[in-house]
Amino acid sequence: MEANASTRPVPVAPAGARRGLGLDELRLHDGFWNRLQRRNTDATLQHCLEWMEKLGWIANFDRVADEDTGGERPGWQFSDSEIYKLIEALAWEYGRTGDGWANQTLEDLVDRIAAAQDEDGYLGTCYGHAGQADRYSDLESGHELYCIGHLLQAAVARVRTVGEDKLVEVARRAADHVCRKFGSEGRQGLCGHAEIEVGLAELGRALGEPRYTEQARLFVERRGHGRLKPIALLDATYFQDDQPVREAEVWRGHAVRALYLAAGAADVAVDTGDGELLDAVARQWSRTVQRRTYLTGGMGSRHQDEGFGEDWELPPDRAYCETCAGIASNMVSWRLYLATGEVRYADLMERTFHNVIATSPSEDGRTFFYANPLHQREAAADVRPGEVNPRAEGGVRAPWFDVSCCPTNLARTLASWQAYAASVEEKTVSLLQYAAGELRVAVAGGHLALRIDTAYPHEGTIRLHIIEAPGGEVGLRLRVPHWADGAELTDGTETERAQPGWAEVRRVFKAGDELMLTLPVQPRLTWPDERIDAQRGCVAVERGPRVLCAEAIDLPDGWSLEDIRIDPDTEPRPEGDGATVRLSPAPPERTAHGHPPYRSTRPIPAEPDWREVRLSPYHRWAQRGGTAMRVFLPAV
Amino acid sequence: MEANASTRPVPVAPAGARRGLGLDELRLHDGFWNRLQRRNTDATLQHCLEWMEKLGWIANFDRVADEDTGGERPGWQFSDSEIYKLIEALAWEYGRTGDGWANQTLEDLVDRIAAAQDEDGYLGTCYGHAGQADRYSDLESGHELYCIGHLLQAAVARVRTVGEDKLVEVARRAADHVCRKFGSEGRQGLCGHAEIEVGLAELGRALGEPRYTEQARLFVERRGHGRLKPIALLDATYFQDDQPVREAEVWRGHAVRALYLAAGAADVAVDTGDGELLDAVARQWSRTVQRRTYLTGGMGSRHQDEGFGEDWELPPDRAYCETCAGIASNMVSWRLYLATGEVRYADLMERTFHNVIATSPSEDGRTFFYANPLHQREAAADVRPGEVNPRAEGGVRAPWFDVSCCPTNLARTLASWQAYAASVEEKTVSLLQYAAGELRVAVAGGHLALRIDTAYPHEGTIRLHIIEAPGGEVGLRLRVPHWADGAELTDGTETERAQPGWAEVRRVFKAGDELMLTLPVQPRLTWPDERIDAQRGCVAVERGPRVLCAEAIDLPDGWSLEDIRIDPDTEPRPEGDGATVRLSPAPPERTAHGHPPYRSTRPIPAEPDWREVRLSPYHRWAQRGGTAMRVFLPAV
Repeated sequence: MEANASTRPVPVAPAGARRGLGLDELRLHDGFWNRLQRRNTDATLQHCLEWMEKLGWIANFDRVADEDTGGERPGWQFSDSEIYKLIEALAWEYGRTGDGWANQTLEDLVDRIAAAQDEDGYLGTCYGHAGQADRYSDLESGHELYCIGHLLQAAVARVRTVGEDKLVEVARRAADHVCRKFGSEGRQGLCGHAEIEVGLAELGRALGEPRYTEQARLFVERRGHGRLKPIALLDATYFQDDQPVREAEVWRGHAVRALYLAAGAADVAVDTGDGELLDAVARQWSRTVQRRTYLTGGMGSRHQDEGFGEDWELPPDRAYCETCAGIASNMVSWRLYLATGEVRYADLMERTFHNVIATSPSEDGRTFFYANPLHQREAAADVRPGEVNPRAEGGVRAPWFDVSCCPTNLARTLASWQAYAASVEEKTVSLLQYAAGELRVAVAGGHLALRIDTAYPHEGTIRLHIIEAPGGEVGLRLRVPHWADGAELTDGTETERAQPGWAEVRRVFKAGDELMLTLPVQPRLTWPDERIDAQRGCVAVERGPRVLCAEAIDLPDGWSLEDIRIDPDTEPRPEGDGATVRLSPAPPERTAHGHPPYRSTRPIPAEPDWREVRLSPYHRWAQRGGTAMRVFLPAV
Repeated sequence: MEANASTRPVPVAPAGARRGLGLDELRLHDGFWNRLQRRNTDATLQHCLEWMEKLGWIANFDRVADEDTGGERPGWQFSDSEIYKLIEALAWEYGRTGDGWANQTLEDLVDRIAAAQDEDGYLGTCYGHAGQADRYSDLESGHELYCIGHLLQAAVARVRTVGEDKLVEVARRAADHVCRKFGSEGRQGLCGHAEIEVGLAELGRALGEPRYTEQARLFVERRGHGRLKPIALLDATYFQDDQPVREAEVWRGHAVRALYLAAGAADVAVDTGDGELLDAVARQWSRTVQRRTYLTGGMGSRHQDEGFGEDWELPPDRAYCETCAGIASNMVSWRLYLATGEVRYADLMERTFHNVIATSPSEDGRTFFYANPLHQREAAADVRPGEVNPRAEGGVRAPWFDVSCCPTNLARTLASWQAYAASVEEKTVSLLQYAAGELRVAVAGGHLALRIDTAYPHEGTIRLHIIEAPGGEVGLRLRVPHWADGAELTDGTETERAQPGWAEVRRVFKAGDELMLTLPVQPRLTWPDERIDAQRGCVAVERGPRVLCAEAIDLPDGWSLEDIRIDPDTEPRPEGDGATVRLSPAPPERTAHGHPPYRSTRPIPAEPDWREVRLSPYHRWAQRGGTAMRVFLPAV
């Protein structure tokens, strides 16, 4: 008998007909995402564990268990959440690979955490014990419910991979405590940082516990009525407490908070059949993606408040594009995709996977970008090994941060990457993210198994070899990205043009059948909307799902990135996994300059001195050392 | 006998040959600066007093005097400084006008402050008393020395207008305390916010007390060696503690701190004959003005940290351009002008006076801009009367702020505006800022008195009528701004072309002589340096020293500022005190848009629908109510 949705090893499992891929349903072969996932396995998981032991964040649980609180407590008030995110990553890792170290490490951590849980189910190392402030005495910035939300997500990973265990029991007690404390008859409070909503909703699904869904609903509805007090300069907008979710038109305020909230609201909407709420989240997605999202898929235009900017406020240089916001954006898009089946959500996820999520970790999996700007004017100095980076500025990957949400968030995302690669719906399998590997899923009437051979996105051909098929008709849908103008699908006899959207073959498959989708991954120019003031007069170069960038170390001697322009009339040429374009230094005469740097005459461009210059995939920038970089190249 | 420099009623009086104007040497007639000054007299001074009484900031002194500290203390730790800046304003006001209310208010405030001064001269309402943290226990953010610096500047205003009095005595005791505590044998500390340097240096000049100058020198030299600990994410650069003043190439970090420090360093350099230090400040000025300064003269590109950006990082929308940074910039430029006589410093001061300082106060003198962005996408909602604006975002003038440095800083600057209008050097008088009025200064051999008739900057003619002249030859230098291409000077018989810089007439003047300078104030286009990414493809319109802007309320019905372009081939035409330009809506077809807002084809501009649209002086924006606004108009 087929596992039902809620017991399949997937992060998100709404009750609807469409489901994501269980981690056991796609085995990756060598390729881009496989390498990122292996790097996570081989380095990042251990790295996160080491840092959190070293800094004493894990020992915070021991201090609570030992009734030794009240002294100096290392870490921010939300540091518990990093341990929970690591546990979630370990749970997916063990579920995917059966790796003993991952399971043992998880169990050791859970033992320490369980020992810190209070009698009544409350769990947190910063509040409510001897020498600490009272529980929930600072809902605005205490992050207690935020931390518990991540605990619940970790438990979801566990229950869906090994079943109920100690972690799940700890999470259940914590969730029950939250429901008692903040239920409809309880305190009408909410957390300054959304996350409990999405955690409760999914745990409700995983355990079949409608009380958790209801509590998630209460938290979603409770926000937007100005209940949270401003923290110094951080106002209601920062917390999304300025407007009810179902009324808002666009995401605003702190980007990760806004996106976690939207993910939770989407879950609640689906589980309660609340079409109005789902439409609200979809509407916010549309407006935000159209007007407040970078070419990379990055979200968050401001360092201040780590927040969204206004419509069209998309400065490449001060782009924040926090790695966690990319992860959170994909959490929302994935939920909207599962709810609606619309291809645009999977399109944005691909963009974000390749240009935000893949950009953060270094090639050794031990340093990370926190912010992901699209323009770096000065080469950043290297971070000294073993040092915490106090500041999440872009330009250099650091091993750990003062606020270190991104490494563990990456770890849990990469450990469960398979889940987002395809979806299954009765007799239809939809391939969403292309990677070499072997897929085997149950569909009505049996199993569909196929091998995917591809070097995508480096190359554009995706070959599917059917290994096993059910007796009846099956639909195989292949996502054709919105940029793929001129894609083709062939089954060896017939070749047809595939329009952006879905290329679908519905028939009785049999073992040995082959299909080939060809996506055009030659480099191409991409023009920003004219309303994006900070990108005016510039063009970017993309190749397949990847944004390319110019790094200063690839310029001819004596050139500077502050002074180049591109020949927009010459198509970029492929080179390696990047491209070459024609660039020229751009200094016109500058003698007429006054102070400040403005002049009374229109600048006359110098005669161009075109040279072929190499652009590289954005996700690899600064892998060869700190360097100036820009995605948008001046064309005027 | 002529008063020596240090007893003349001027804010800055180095020992050199060149001096600024005493407030008693220029009486303004009706005109732009006169109106701003009268508004300050009639409304702003009283307004600041009322707010600081209402919020309890002044009563903080009473609580110290009454030994009633330890309870809730209203205001930030630096609120004392606002009372000192108001006192400075009142001192200049009384010195300039003899107004009894100003003097009485000042004396009442000084009584309350003096009562709070500790036995040993320490003065501060936030530290060192019962229930408070220890004195100087938090040099990074305590602002104790910063506050005392403003006290000393207030005392300078008093000693130079009425002589030594109770305020001066209070200041002297406070300065002595600082010298004992932080002298070369004392604690090697420095304040997180520079200001004590400039206060000590000028009080040293005013009282002829070299110990104060030496202490200022110690503080200047002590900075830049990483002595200050980071405050959360605010690092050494924020405090300018990353690099010694004499080694730095450019201003960086928190803009007001950087500029107050530079002003203090310039004072120290001049008073100690330290050419290297003076050159360092001048070098920083040049680099910063060339690469980190807005067309308005505004400084500070980032809301985060209220800081300078990198070179060429000048986003119009997120420009911070704090009003106080404009004031501080003029403090530095004025000191460099007095030290060098170079006209470029006075040029920048004019730009900053007209486009930052004059922009902040509303027409009733009771609301203020804190930040002065050059692009506002959405009309800001009005601030509710009587409410503190927690946030210094641009777009709306507010009556008071949580951090309310700008209103009192404006008050002291406007009350002493005359000082910066001209300089005197032996037999030469240099007119720097043009305003209608009557000037009478002592020069070698007697007095030069003249009437200035002008409606500048609305009109470009400046007529000088000599009322009194000494027997011998006198030089009269008129500043010709750097933008004034085609200026002319006539004495009624001969007319000559005046190049940007100085137009000088050196001769024996006699009563009845007339001179007329004509500056071209027709509107003109101004092009940003191509390296300013956020202004690429745009042009601004200026008229005389004023930057103009488009306000959404002046657009044809149905148009939006996010969607316009300018015809850069048509010269703007004067209209009122602004201009008209040819604008067109700019939407090309937008059907090809994907998500996010980028497209694969080069946008084809729509056929322009040119209309004449009015631009207004930037300093008046939002005076007619909240509105979207932009200075830089897309030309491509």
